[in-house]
Amino acid sequence: MKPSLAKGTRDFTAEEVIKRKYIISVLEKNFRLFGFQPLETPSFENLSTLTGKYGEEGDRLIFKILNSGDYASKTNSDDWTSKNSQKLTSQISEKALRYDLTVPFARFVAMNHGQLTFPFKRYQIQPVWRADRPQKGRFREFYQCDADVVGSESLLQEVELVQLYLKSFLDLKIPVKLNINNRKILSGLAEYAGIPDQLIDFTVALDKLDKIGRDDVVKELESKNISSDSIKKLEFLFKPQTDQLQLLFNLKEKFATIPIGLEGVEELEFVLTHCINLGISHENLIFNITLARGLEYYTGAIFEVKADSVEIGSIGGGGRYNNLTEIFGVKNIPGIGISFGLDRIYLVMEELNLFPENSIENTKYLFVNYGTEESIQALRIINKLHKNNISAELYPENTKLKKQFSYAEKKVIENMVFLGEEEMKNETITVKNQKTGEQKTFAQEDFLNQNK
Amino acid sequence: MKPSLAKGTRDFTAEEVIKRKYIISVLEKNFRLFGFQPLETPSFENLSTLTGKYGEEGDRLIFKILNSGDYASKTNSDDWTSKNSQKLTSQISEKALRYDLTVPFARFVAMNHGQLTFPFKRYQIQPVWRADRPQKGRFREFYQCDADVVGSESLLQEVELVQLYLKSFLDLKIPVKLNINNRKILSGLAEYAGIPDQLIDFTVALDKLDKIGRDDVVKELESKNISSDSIKKLEFLFKPQTDQLQLLFNLKEKFATIPIGLEGVEELEFVLTHCINLGISHENLIFNITLARGLEYYTGAIFEVKADSVEIGSIGGGGRYNNLTEIFGVKNIPGIGISFGLDRIYLVMEELNLFPENSIENTKYLFVNYGTEESIQALRIINKLHKNNISAELYPENTKLKKQFSYAEKKVIENMVFLGEEEMKNETITVKNQKTGEQKTFAQEDFLNQNK
Repeated sequence: MKPSLAKGTRDFTAEEVIKRKYIISVLEKNFRLFGFQPLETPSFENLSTLTGKYGEEGDRLIFKILNSGDYASKTNSDDWTSKNSQKLTSQISEKALRYDLTVPFARFVAMNHGQLTFPFKRYQIQPVWRADRPQKGRFREFYQCDADVVGSESLLQEVELVQLYLKSFLDLKIPVKLNINNRKILSGLAEYAGIPDQLIDFTVALDKLDKIGRDDVVKELESKNISSDSIKKLEFLFKPQTDQLQLLFNLKEKFATIPIGLEGVEELEFVLTHCINLGISHENLIFNITLARGLEYYTGAIFEVKADSVEIGSIGGGGRYNNLTEIFGVKNIPGIGISFGLDRIYLVMEELNLFPENSIENTKYLFVNYGTEESIQALRIINKLHKNNISAELYPENTKLKKQFSYAEKKVIENMVFLGEEEMKNETITVKNQKTGEQKTFAQEDFLNQNK
Repeated sequence: MKPSLAKGTRDFTAEEVIKRKYIISVLEKNFRLFGFQPLETPSFENLSTLTGKYGEEGDRLIFKILNSGDYASKTNSDDWTSKNSQKLTSQISEKALRYDLTVPFARFVAMNHGQLTFPFKRYQIQPVWRADRPQKGRFREFYQCDADVVGSESLLQEVELVQLYLKSFLDLKIPVKLNINNRKILSGLAEYAGIPDQLIDFTVALDKLDKIGRDDVVKELESKNISSDSIKKLEFLFKPQTDQLQLLFNLKEKFATIPIGLEGVEELEFVLTHCINLGISHENLIFNITLARGLEYYTGAIFEVKADSVEIGSIGGGGRYNNLTEIFGVKNIPGIGISFGLDRIYLVMEELNLFPENSIENTKYLFVNYGTEESIQALRIINKLHKNNISAELYPENTKLKKQFSYAEKKVIENMVFLGEEEMKNETITVKNQKTGEQKTFAQEDFLNQNK
């Protein structure tokens, strides 16, 4: 009988909703300033649209929706008899909840590419669902905020998205570092070390350098049967990088006969140079050669944003990809996207106390209830306040003043308004500021004139 | 391979998202003005939270989420062997998608009533999901916008919600009629006709008077075995009501010995009188004695909003209920709520052409791409525009002007900006208004000063 929340989900109370909306409004404002337009896709997709897009583990974490009606009767008898859950799933479920915003976006572009104007710039801010084991800071329902441009390979877009990232976090007042790397540089390194077929093993290990240090990275590489010769050639990566320009220079030498690596360095140079040209500091935009993220997906630039002073992992990430819609049979739609981690941004802003105080707009005036006649006069004045876009409410019951005061206090209402017998007679109104304790009586007309 | 939308779902493109957000922003503004605070609940709830709350048909229409992992192994063998879908559902599904906003709200209040400040005023604007057969204007995913006050029985809240309804539709510029009735009047009528046990049969038929006319209503009553004596006593209801005050007067006579009916008339009189006192016209607020809506749920006032000039059914509805949280074992939380039908409001506004033109903010300036050097200078100026909250973008590729123009046209961008060799040299900028065709060259500094 006693109800509870489903595991891994949350209610958002007024304060939380308002704070989350504040973050979203800042992101949306910036998306729009940069020419991105909103898109919203349905919460559920055909199961076949989602499966096979997120790897085996991903497929397991997709929430499937049970078919309606007599679903059991439509199943294959052998699978049923053997209670083969895995094989039965697609027979009793044909829909599933959105797992991320990228695949639905790809589905949308694939379905509508004839009508869209390319380059197509869209942003999307919606919840996604994953059947992950819930833990601190990890939920089964959470929001993603993505901005993508598809239809062009111009590197100016990398430059633009760096601007967008940094301006957004500047507006939110969160000091961040934007790490940047390039998949082609990592491919070049793997080739340089003679392990082109072990790119993923290599980058997965390298990505951990910050966390586990040089020795453990080397151990992990060894455990993947990467030879000591190869590791030796990569040794220069494991030292702290102090001079980024020097590092790029060194890479160019190493990549003299490795076109893919050279291409990566040139792309990165283009982005870095022009960002610096545009006034972005080396402090904020950092070439991080260990950055890999979802490497299988990215084909060029890779981004990751971290807050300067809060240990919480990345609060944003993204990169360039070769083809958004190939999985749906539509070719030649390259793109680049960035994502903002709403939940973590929220936690960072809480910790750094960055939410503007006035972001929580509580009711400005609570009118005390002295009975029906007074209440109707109160509602008359409240009506006029509402017309002037000023929030005001009447306590609905004629009850003890103490209770009405306590309501105002708990709802953090700025002012109590008294419109009793005396005030009715004199056409006045008494207002008490709950913070300062100051109390003043006005002619009703003056009060309304002051609240315009 | 060719992807499609799941049945009954929709993508919302930029224009649609922006128009929907416009409606939502007007509603939210008004909710906040009246002292309502936002709440958001998770998209899915424990299945047990939802089942049994919407009737048998409702239970069938709830989207259930399939358990993860080897769900088949945990089922009852007999139910499995007999392929009993109905009995198996709760064994292979423990979560379900939100079917409306009321039950999750009740769940929230039941879980948190110790911490909440009553009367608790919340609004909630979120999607809900129903496994209905999709048809024109009926979707499997749609938004509900609800505002409820719980914890007080004061009739001033009826008055307040009438204001909220009418002010919201006034702000949206939709001419509406707000119909009002009272469950107690309907109960009184059933008692007066000697059919207190057939209240639902009686009101279901009466509710159709507008659509099917007197004769068919009488036929339906007869088919429910309501006697001709009873029908005769109710005959006065089937004539067009011209004078509401006269009708109320007549009801009082008929209800002389029927306390519940009298109470209903008095409640209604209170609400009508004070609304009229507050300046609401008889034209907008109409006592409609045939209005029943979800009668099983409502216990006092019943509301329904219809657009004046568009045939689309109700675009809002609500009423008073005795207890929100009893289903979850928490007593004594009466309330009243109203709901706005977002999808239908959207259709009405489209038909009446009510969306403000500037609600779709497209990019203001598209900078033509003449190559890297010019582009970087363009990005420098775009940066400054963004700081001034003016939207601007650079076409990412140095391609034919025609293509760039066509991009601006399709995205309805107000101005094309040319910053070519000549302009670079002279530190000028040329702006062409796409609507008027007017073209002007400015000093870059002057252009920026004008865009602040």
